[in-house]
Amino acid sequence: LKGPKEKGTMGEPAPRALAGSAVERVLIGVAGLGHVGKAFVGLVQDKADSLRTRFGLDLKFWALLKSDGGLISDSGISLEDLAGLDQSRLTLSPLWKTGLGVEDVLPRSGPGVFVDCTPSNIQTGEPGLAYIRTALKAGWHVVTAGKGPLVADFEGLRGLARDNHLGLGFSAATAAALPALDIGVHSLAGADVLSIEGILNGTSNFILTQMGEGAPYEVALKLAQVRGIAEPNPALDVGGWDTAVKLLLIANSVLGLGLTRGDVQVEGITGVRPEDLTQARRKGRAIKLIGRIRREGDRWRAEVGPVSIDRTHPLFGVEGTNKGITFETDTMGSVTVSGGKSDPRGAAAALLKDIIHVFRK
Amino acid sequence: LKGPKEKGTMGEPAPRALAGSAVERVLIGVAGLGHVGKAFVGLVQDKADSLRTRFGLDLKFWALLKSDGGLISDSGISLEDLAGLDQSRLTLSPLWKTGLGVEDVLPRSGPGVFVDCTPSNIQTGEPGLAYIRTALKAGWHVVTAGKGPLVADFEGLRGLARDNHLGLGFSAATAAALPALDIGVHSLAGADVLSIEGILNGTSNFILTQMGEGAPYEVALKLAQVRGIAEPNPALDVGGWDTAVKLLLIANSVLGLGLTRGDVQVEGITGVRPEDLTQARRKGRAIKLIGRIRREGDRWRAEVGPVSIDRTHPLFGVEGTNKGITFETDTMGSVTVSGGKSDPRGAAAALLKDIIHVFRK
Repeated sequence: LKGPKEKGTMGEPAPRALAGSAVERVLIGVAGLGHVGKAFVGLVQDKADSLRTRFGLDLKFWALLKSDGGLISDSGISLEDLAGLDQSRLTLSPLWKTGLGVEDVLPRSGPGVFVDCTPSNIQTGEPGLAYIRTALKAGWHVVTAGKGPLVADFEGLRGLARDNHLGLGFSAATAAALPALDIGVHSLAGADVLSIEGILNGTSNFILTQMGEGAPYEVALKLAQVRGIAEPNPALDVGGWDTAVKLLLIANSVLGLGLTRGDVQVEGITGVRPEDLTQARRKGRAIKLIGRIRREGDRWRAEVGPVSIDRTHPLFGVEGTNKGITFETDTMGSVTVSGGKSDPRGAAAALLKDIIHVFRK
Repeated sequence: LKGPKEKGTMGEPAPRALAGSAVERVLIGVAGLGHVGKAFVGLVQDKADSLRTRFGLDLKFWALLKSDGGLISDSGISLEDLAGLDQSRLTLSPLWKTGLGVEDVLPRSGPGVFVDCTPSNIQTGEPGLAYIRTALKAGWHVVTAGKGPLVADFEGLRGLARDNHLGLGFSAATAAALPALDIGVHSLAGADVLSIEGILNGTSNFILTQMGEGAPYEVALKLAQVRGIAEPNPALDVGGWDTAVKLLLIANSVLGLGLTRGDVQVEGITGVRPEDLTQARRKGRAIKLIGRIRREGDRWRAEVGPVSIDRTHPLFGVEGTNKGITFETDTMGSVTVSGGKSDPRGAAAALLKDIIHVFRK
């Protein structure tokens, strides 16, 4: 028994027709040229044609900024100017200006979209927080891959965007290519979300999956580091803080809450013993690091911790570096989304999607 | 081992603040007062407050139409007028007009949103097709729970909506509360979708799940009928046609194709033997009725049929009346969404969501 084998009639592939044919030129300013920033620049170049034909968008790189300076060009930075974004060659570009900063640059032109890919401090939100404020005040839409700025001042940044009628996209900061925010905010519009549960950190889930197959914690962590899944300092991941921060950004957006880091009860995976996992497995269960928020009376309770779940749980099959999130609702039942690439290109794709959404309709 | 047990700090529930405070009054015309139509009317009444505060929408029922007449009121049809939408009492309402039809009513007022809940013929698309054309020509946005009209004239209806700058929402016709279209069109914007695979028919999936647990086909079908899952005539469901039609609406929307029913190769579940399922189960596999579209060279191949999948397949855990869909993409990896209520209220919630999206931003 298998799928139908006969040759089916085939449809011609046809590009999505664009309503009207006006193409809008959009200036792009990028801060941060690490893995995600570079992936974003590459992705926009790869997708230039389809962005024009499908979405009517002509994205032009106007400024690309690092911490010590950047490239800027009113006519758009071309592929050659970028020279593969190679660190050493970048500063040799005729467009390079040492000391060029977001604060100098953004108010000078635009409007456009400011893309924040800086590695912001999770406590202070800087430098991204100052950059995003500058951008919004100067009339730029903002999309960001950084959790720090949003955690530091969620209400303030959202208010600033709203008051200036600007977009503020942060899909890339919550679960990247996994459309957790889209589901909660867009697909469930009109339903009341009763609870949210997610496996939101790929590193922890990878380690727990490995441990479930017999590897001790230290070995599983080492394997994650060797494969480039875990960072050299995995504290935020295995300590549950990365999950907590994603959970609160999603909960604040979907439920209209104003939670901050202190409102989430956090336990990581470092206390999980191999025998806990083996035992769970023997019973047909699995232990997952789950971020969860649910009503308790007239208040919300947010927590992160290792939880033993059984085969009927919608997140049971989310293994390895995969992520997943389940929303319980009043009218639409339970909706779960899982998967989504966990690499820099996946994060870049989430940034690009948020830009498309700003200009859609 | 379990989740964190200490009392976490809790956040105050806060209603989502509405940007600006203008509330827009939107006229609603509904055709078809079967299970879905009634559920929609009830849902809009239940959600009136949150529609106003969260989305700035004041939905007013202006016309409610059945095949033999309907209610109409310029000041809005109130809860009392509806009298529980009881068939016999409806015609006794002072607002009832025998013979009142969509074609007479819609061009007389509006604009607003026309909600099509008629049980349209899957071959001809009527009566919904004529209704939707009338509505769009009269300047009404349209949301529909009917597959028939869209399958009969997908390109025509989409073109009519586009040319008149009107919304045409059909989430309720594809997978209801499962946000298959949202993911494909909205969440994956900018990515190239390489293939789509879905378990899109709850009845067939329920029957296969029951058969996997030992029930013969006839018994499983009977059980589905007794529980109100399968219709008295289950031919469209078990024959694979319901899946095929949903697949082609999703594929046409997401991939920009113009597939029609003849372009999908269809096999149902009636040829699946209990021993196939038992054998699959013994090997840790499952047989699912899967609708699938993928590239084959420079063309697309669409097919529906029973497929044996293993534990690593993202749809493996989709059991009983649940549905699920997986999109493979170039930049975002594989994204799967599953769940979503399969009852009239779930379909009504999908209609309401589409209305919210028409007016959002």
